[in-house]
Amino acid sequence: MTATLYVCTTCKVGEVHEDDSQRPGARLHRALTSAPAPDGVQIVGVACLSACKTGAAVALSQPGKWTYVYGQMTEDNAPDILEGAALYAASEDGIVPWRERPVIFRKQSVARVPALTLPLEAAP
Amino acid sequence: MTATLYVCTTCKVGEVHEDDSQRPGARLHRALTSAPAPDGVQIVGVACLSACKTGAAVALSQPGKWTYVYGQMTEDNAPDILEGAALYAASEDGIVPWRERPVIFRKQSVARVPALTLPLEAAP
Repeated sequence: MTATLYVCTTCKVGEVHEDDSQRPGARLHRALTSAPAPDGVQIVGVACLSACKTGAAVALSQPGKWTYVYGQMTEDNAPDILEGAALYAASEDGIVPWRERPVIFRKQSVARVPALTLPLEAAP
Repeated sequence: MTATLYVCTTCKVGEVHEDDSQRPGARLHRALTSAPAPDGVQIVGVACLSACKTGAAVALSQPGKWTYVYGQMTEDNAPDILEGAALYAASEDGIVPWRERPVIFRKQSVARVPALTLPLEAAP
C-alpha cells in the first residue's frame, strides 16, 4: 500500500504571476518531484486543496491511516516534507511520534482527519 | 454507505474552561447531536482534528469522496452544518455545487483532500 502526498499546485500565497507555473504551489510541486519519491510514497499534484488561507498546502493520505494537511510550505521545505512523508508511509496508522516529525509538520498543521475504518463505517 | 461528520470536541477557540465539557468544540458536538442525524450521516466526536488555529473544526468524509474540513464553527452553525452534511452525503463525489453549499462552508473552508480512489492507490 502506498501513501499519497498531495501537493496543491495552484496555491498563490498572495503572489501574482502571469504564468501559473510560477505559483508557489507549482514551484513546491516541482521541488518535491525533482528527485525520486521516497519508498512507499507517491506524489500527486492537485488543482486545489481549498486551503487557500494557509497555502502552499500539502496533504498525506493512505487507506487505514489518519489524513494530515500541512500549510505555509515553501520550496525550501521540500526535503523536510519528503522526510515526513516517508515517516508517515512507514507508520502503522499515520501518527508519527511527535518528536520524530519534521518541525514544519509539528508547527504548521492545518488539520487531520481520522481514517475511515471499518468499525466507524459500520456504525449507524 | 454513510458519510461521517467528525466534530473536534476539544477545540478551545481561546476560551478557558475548568470543565472540558464547556469547551466550544464540546458544545458544538452537543448541538450537532441534540437531534437525530440527517439521513446517511453519522456524527462522530474526535479528541483532536489538529486544526487548533481554525477551531472549532468539523470534517466530512466518506469512502470514494473528497474529504472536507471546515473551521470557526459555532453552536449557532449547527443547523447549517447538518444541512451541508446531508448535501455531502447525497452527493456522488463529495463535491456539492457551490451555490447549494451553506455559506459557512463556502467561506470557512480549512482544507479538502481527494478521495483515495482505486486508480490512485494502484499507481506506483
